[in-house]
Amino acid sequence: MKFIIIGGDAAGMSAASKAKRQIPEMEVMVLEQSDDVSYSACGMPYNIADADRDINDLIVRKAHVFREKQGIDLKTGHRVESIDITEKTVSGINSAGDTFRFPYDDMLIATGGSPILPDIPGIALPGVMALKSLNDGRKIKSYIAGHRVQRVAIIGMGYIGLEMAEALRSRSIDVDMIKPGPVFLPWMKKELSDIVRKELEENQVKLFYGHSIHRIETSGNQLKLIGPGQTLTVDMILVAIGIKPNSKLASDSGLEIGVKDAIAIDKEMRTSDKHIFAAGDCADAFHVVSGKKAWIPLALRANRAGWAVADNVCGKSVELPGIVGTAVFKVFDLEVARTGLTESEAIESGFDPAGVVIQTRSRAHAHPGSSTISIHMLADRKTGRLLGTQMVGKEGVAHRINAIAVALHNHMTVEAFSQADLAYAPPFGPTWDPLLTTANQLIKKVN
Amino acid sequence: MKFIIIGGDAAGMSAASKAKRQIPEMEVMVLEQSDDVSYSACGMPYNIADADRDINDLIVRKAHVFREKQGIDLKTGHRVESIDITEKTVSGINSAGDTFRFPYDDMLIATGGSPILPDIPGIALPGVMALKSLNDGRKIKSYIAGHRVQRVAIIGMGYIGLEMAEALRSRSIDVDMIKPGPVFLPWMKKELSDIVRKELEENQVKLFYGHSIHRIETSGNQLKLIGPGQTLTVDMILVAIGIKPNSKLASDSGLEIGVKDAIAIDKEMRTSDKHIFAAGDCADAFHVVSGKKAWIPLALRANRAGWAVADNVCGKSVELPGIVGTAVFKVFDLEVARTGLTESEAIESGFDPAGVVIQTRSRAHAHPGSSTISIHMLADRKTGRLLGTQMVGKEGVAHRINAIAVALHNHMTVEAFSQADLAYAPPFGPTWDPLLTTANQLIKKVN
Repeated sequence: MKFIIIGGDAAGMSAASKAKRQIPEMEVMVLEQSDDVSYSACGMPYNIADADRDINDLIVRKAHVFREKQGIDLKTGHRVESIDITEKTVSGINSAGDTFRFPYDDMLIATGGSPILPDIPGIALPGVMALKSLNDGRKIKSYIAGHRVQRVAIIGMGYIGLEMAEALRSRSIDVDMIKPGPVFLPWMKKELSDIVRKELEENQVKLFYGHSIHRIETSGNQLKLIGPGQTLTVDMILVAIGIKPNSKLASDSGLEIGVKDAIAIDKEMRTSDKHIFAAGDCADAFHVVSGKKAWIPLALRANRAGWAVADNVCGKSVELPGIVGTAVFKVFDLEVARTGLTESEAIESGFDPAGVVIQTRSRAHAHPGSSTISIHMLADRKTGRLLGTQMVGKEGVAHRINAIAVALHNHMTVEAFSQADLAYAPPFGPTWDPLLTTANQLIKKVN
Repeated sequence: MKFIIIGGDAAGMSAASKAKRQIPEMEVMVLEQSDDVSYSACGMPYNIADADRDINDLIVRKAHVFREKQGIDLKTGHRVESIDITEKTVSGINSAGDTFRFPYDDMLIATGGSPILPDIPGIALPGVMALKSLNDGRKIKSYIAGHRVQRVAIIGMGYIGLEMAEALRSRSIDVDMIKPGPVFLPWMKKELSDIVRKELEENQVKLFYGHSIHRIETSGNQLKLIGPGQTLTVDMILVAIGIKPNSKLASDSGLEIGVKDAIAIDKEMRTSDKHIFAAGDCADAFHVVSGKKAWIPLALRANRAGWAVADNVCGKSVELPGIVGTAVFKVFDLEVARTGLTESEAIESGFDPAGVVIQTRSRAHAHPGSSTISIHMLADRKTGRLLGTQMVGKEGVAHRINAIAVALHNHMTVEAFSQADLAYAPPFGPTWDPLLTTANQLIKKVN
């Protein structure tokens, strides 16, 4: 029994480790095109924030541990170029230039995602960087160390862009953020995104939304980001528009592609070929709230899906119920969290969403140190079912969102949620938890 | 239609306000024996911690607002002494010494709880205090202000005792905590309670458990707490053994009494007399996990039950599903939280509990500032159903517990919970949330 895994990041190494733990005699081979496996990709902005920290601190487990301690046949520097699903082989080339071809019984495609790069002149110039792999992190860190980087433009305003804005400001680097779209954070209710915008501006991050970018040019030691009627002159450019699933290998092999070009998988993580699984940022997932397929590339899902693949390859049939789209990030002093559907996603999914925006306090009446928590909560007008929640605040946001995530997994109505027995003590919230206060208001808008 | 409420604290004033909002022409009378209504009782330790803060800051809404703005016939200084459930009248005496007798159509008993005082000589001496009402808080604060209080003994080691230990230490007062019981926090798994104990000791709180107390004596300006083979000499004594429900008025009237001497109520908050409701610390509740009656006096439940009574009195039939026993407190730098059943409660309720204790980190691998989170989680061996969770840590505990609380409300199995899509970002936790890591281990112990 030979199990081949393409890609040695979160999903791939989780699957390899768990398969080998369950069936030690199984031949488990991992083909990873880079030299890095098992690192905390999400930790990169925080590592980049600190010039003194070694980026290799982010490596959770070294390659030799997987090989020697776990008995995984881990081949780094091995790029897979094709899969023959009839012959059940994978072929490619390694970093020494040698080609390879291996047969498999079961396979996992865990090729992850790649940064989206805008198709503009100058995008490949030195000093224009993206951040996805550990090697990207190395390049950014060494570029900052080796150049006089006083000002950086970030193209895009997603989670990574926002986290990198904070990271760069903490190194006293000026930051401009720019994107063509006219709305700052379009997935977020405006009352809440305004708070995030203000936090960025208070930390001297300049925001240019609704600004097209036509080309990048060098200008002495600097780079010019040129759009209609505006030029930003900076020392480095970070492209953080978002990522796309690395699904070409799968589609070239004839496997079915699902939403947003991600590899289509069932609840057992199987692709359209029953011997080939896909997991992590390259694969789609079922959304528990919408009941539809979604592509939301996040680390927890990648790890969990890797484990589920290992179980299924080892003959222990496991189905994952799906995701609810929970995410959190920190931007300067703010915690920003979401779970479930946005208003427009809810409408697209056939719901009739009613929503409220509530501002409450992070601590009890008269308790010192309290700050504002802003919450946007949605429920279906017809059924009362909770659909999603977004929160922003200086404290008490990041973990509080999980109560709603669990409620969404259970298809709770806002009325049932409003009766939840949540924790209370003055340093941690008002008697009525902010989520309950919001639910109590939202009830009035549903039948 | 006349609605009389006995007791003007959380449950009583919540009921009065909501009834009057729903039916403005309803005659709503509140009879409160003290002069205080609507204050944050849970905030008292934090107020006492700060000599400069006025204890009246804890008053959320003043009596005249209820009277003038809300039209509630609020009578403070009115002590009810008897209820005639046949004649439907309440009788008592006011602070001017005048007796009163009022007829009602519907009534709410919201008489709260009283501190349990040990039956030992000297318990009534000046300087021996308890903390339940705002007036108790006033007395403690003025006693500390008026005396040279350098050392306090706290009898009992419940939430209030622990919060008061921190409050007094923050005023540089030495604290001894003493109780006869041999186990420090008997409801808590030892691996976790050891962390709390250590935190207290590191903050110079001396703990004497398994120490009986025979009597209290004055000794000059000080008090002596005398037990077998040991005497603590202190400047003030705080009794914080716990509270008991104020149910005598109800039992004297012939109403049914339930668990732990609390007034027995149904899911509509009705007592054994359909015109009399009970809510707050004087009444019992259904426990969603055990399926049995429980008495867990906490502020959120009191407020919520008050609202439910108002709805029912106003003709909008409302049933509360019950409590899951969620509580959180802060003790120095620790957050301590629990929800659901303890191991012994689970056994008593007919479950076959399997448990794990896990230590995880509060932030991601390699993220600075991380600390330990310790979790004890229980599930039923036969069904896999989650039964309860306890957590201790310096951060990420207080709000995280709510995810389990919501899971308990939904009767989730530990396996289903382990698939929950919880939030992840490096500053707020590891990729696998501490609760998920614990659930993943606990799965192995069920079925």
